[in-house]
Amino acid sequence: MFTCVGYAATAADAPLAPLSFERRDTGPDDVRIDILYCGVCHSDIHQARNEWRNTLYPCVPGHEIVGRVAEVGGSVTRFKPGQLVGVGCMVDSCRECASCQEGLEQYCEEGFVGTYNGEDRHGRGLTFGGYSKAVVVDQGFVLSIPETLDPAAAAPLLCAGITTWSPLRHWKVGPGMRVGIVGLGGLGHMGVKFARALGAEVVLFTTSASKVADGERLGAHEVVLSKDPEAMAKEQGRFDFILDAVAANHDINTYLGLLKREGTLVQVGAPEDPMPVSVFSLIFKRRNFAGSLIGGIAETQEMLDFCGEHGITSDIEMIRMEEIETAYTRMLRSDVKYRFVIDMDSMPAHA
Amino acid sequence: MFTCVGYAATAADAPLAPLSFERRDTGPDDVRIDILYCGVCHSDIHQARNEWRNTLYPCVPGHEIVGRVAEVGGSVTRFKPGQLVGVGCMVDSCRECASCQEGLEQYCEEGFVGTYNGEDRHGRGLTFGGYSKAVVVDQGFVLSIPETLDPAAAAPLLCAGITTWSPLRHWKVGPGMRVGIVGLGGLGHMGVKFARALGAEVVLFTTSASKVADGERLGAHEVVLSKDPEAMAKEQGRFDFILDAVAANHDINTYLGLLKREGTLVQVGAPEDPMPVSVFSLIFKRRNFAGSLIGGIAETQEMLDFCGEHGITSDIEMIRMEEIETAYTRMLRSDVKYRFVIDMDSMPAHA
Repeated sequence: MFTCVGYAATAADAPLAPLSFERRDTGPDDVRIDILYCGVCHSDIHQARNEWRNTLYPCVPGHEIVGRVAEVGGSVTRFKPGQLVGVGCMVDSCRECASCQEGLEQYCEEGFVGTYNGEDRHGRGLTFGGYSKAVVVDQGFVLSIPETLDPAAAAPLLCAGITTWSPLRHWKVGPGMRVGIVGLGGLGHMGVKFARALGAEVVLFTTSASKVADGERLGAHEVVLSKDPEAMAKEQGRFDFILDAVAANHDINTYLGLLKREGTLVQVGAPEDPMPVSVFSLIFKRRNFAGSLIGGIAETQEMLDFCGEHGITSDIEMIRMEEIETAYTRMLRSDVKYRFVIDMDSMPAHA
Repeated sequence: MFTCVGYAATAADAPLAPLSFERRDTGPDDVRIDILYCGVCHSDIHQARNEWRNTLYPCVPGHEIVGRVAEVGGSVTRFKPGQLVGVGCMVDSCRECASCQEGLEQYCEEGFVGTYNGEDRHGRGLTFGGYSKAVVVDQGFVLSIPETLDPAAAAPLLCAGITTWSPLRHWKVGPGMRVGIVGLGGLGHMGVKFARALGAEVVLFTTSASKVADGERLGAHEVVLSKDPEAMAKEQGRFDFILDAVAANHDINTYLGLLKREGTLVQVGAPEDPMPVSVFSLIFKRRNFAGSLIGGIAETQEMLDFCGEHGITSDIEMIRMEEIETAYTRMLRSDVKYRFVIDMDSMPAHA
């Protein structure tokens, strides 16, 4: 075991603060990573503040991890010290169920082990995330990050990136398809970049007039203000696929109505309240309303390789570790373009 | 023009009563049908009572029509006098849009013309349905009914039948699939019969203990009481496909939870209120919630031919025309096994 410093919540109402905790030594299948950067995901806030009512304290958030390999176990062949690597939302799964066998560990029938707030499958206790100087992860859940990418801007690919990539690929978004992206935040801005890079015609829907120019800069062919009823009326029934990345409560029927016959709207933002769906939104054009959860390890690697080839990363604002609570406050009012990333050099050496 | 007798609603709060009205003469493409039987669909009640706020009075309901050809126009080649035929929910559509060209007239971009309460596309006024002695329909919307089927029990195939057949076929239900049917009513009992005949493993979900034996008789391999939490818990994540035929408000998340990863629940019953969908029901197994509307003319014929080969019809209770209001009252308390069919011999000769 070795002692690691991180930033942790110790209670739902306690601000994050430095904490010393133990990590396991590098086992035969493990990769020990010195963390360079960690993206800040909205889930981090939910978990730190126990908004999902399942937080185990102390809680060290962070599942958009980029770092360099410090040490590898004896059975590790795919990684070597110094290599740029990443860790996303998962650090383990059963590896035996049909989903795991198909490379869809996020749908593991026994439940995947979260990078933080997860219960280790081998009795080694609670998992702690990327708001820390180092992490030890089984090689099966470590990703290779193309060296051509800015490592800080690559960090959000590990959650915001794969969460949008996976549904775009699963529903085969590509040339000839008209694709809507709803919401320009951490997820949405990746959705715009990916859908564009995959060859689709991309229309961004946003509530903010101030985001129109940015939407276009990020790759949208068209930006529609969703508060403009006339503009929305013009888009009715025109979309093959819509990715809805809005985590706040919103009227989903408005967006279902934009789909063509047999079109699919995939929700990746997770509003707290159930979303009232008018069955008529679905019935009259045989439409689909679906959900999608992050993505498997193999497709995460596929996405990272694609990002390397196409020079795609997240638009980020770098923060120091001690600025995390301010960052949370700004995220809650959508005041970030488009992802905060913590520079782990700012982590104090001792708690 | 010729004078026809039917049963009509003249206002939302008026009981149905005999009415004389005019039908067009048989044009070159028309088939004039002497109606033998007409099924009674829940939509008839909604429309007669203006519950969808779009009823044009007088309203002659009925879109599960079986009869014999009385006369055909000069351009009609597929039908001849004396032939057993049917008419479902549609009597026309634009015939030019992509959906019409694909044989999916129910999704016509200009909207199909309903068999009743529809606006004729050639300025010939309001359409009147099957609660009448005769009807004149363009040959493109007339179906051939296998002579081997009981014509009265075949009538509900034209709406309840195709509404369940179409999604079962579209989502490729067949051997090796575990299929749930929710609700044992006019639609649900056809869903059970079709899913069984298509080779699936069929599980019926019902709230009524009194329907268990009937569900098995109709073809369900298993019947689950949806009010039994333990029985429901055992079925979690076990279904490839679910057809939800319940038109009353109900908790859809309960049924979404029964789906396997990537399973689809198709709603064909149309609850009045929006259905609250917890996004977590969808996200954690990449599930789909979809809708489906009746079916196209070609697939209606395919279904009727399948019914002819497999001896499938609806379970019906025959009524006389003057019993229609009593039938409506009984339908509203689900007291029918499983479809009322009007014997058109009981229609008065004069209004």
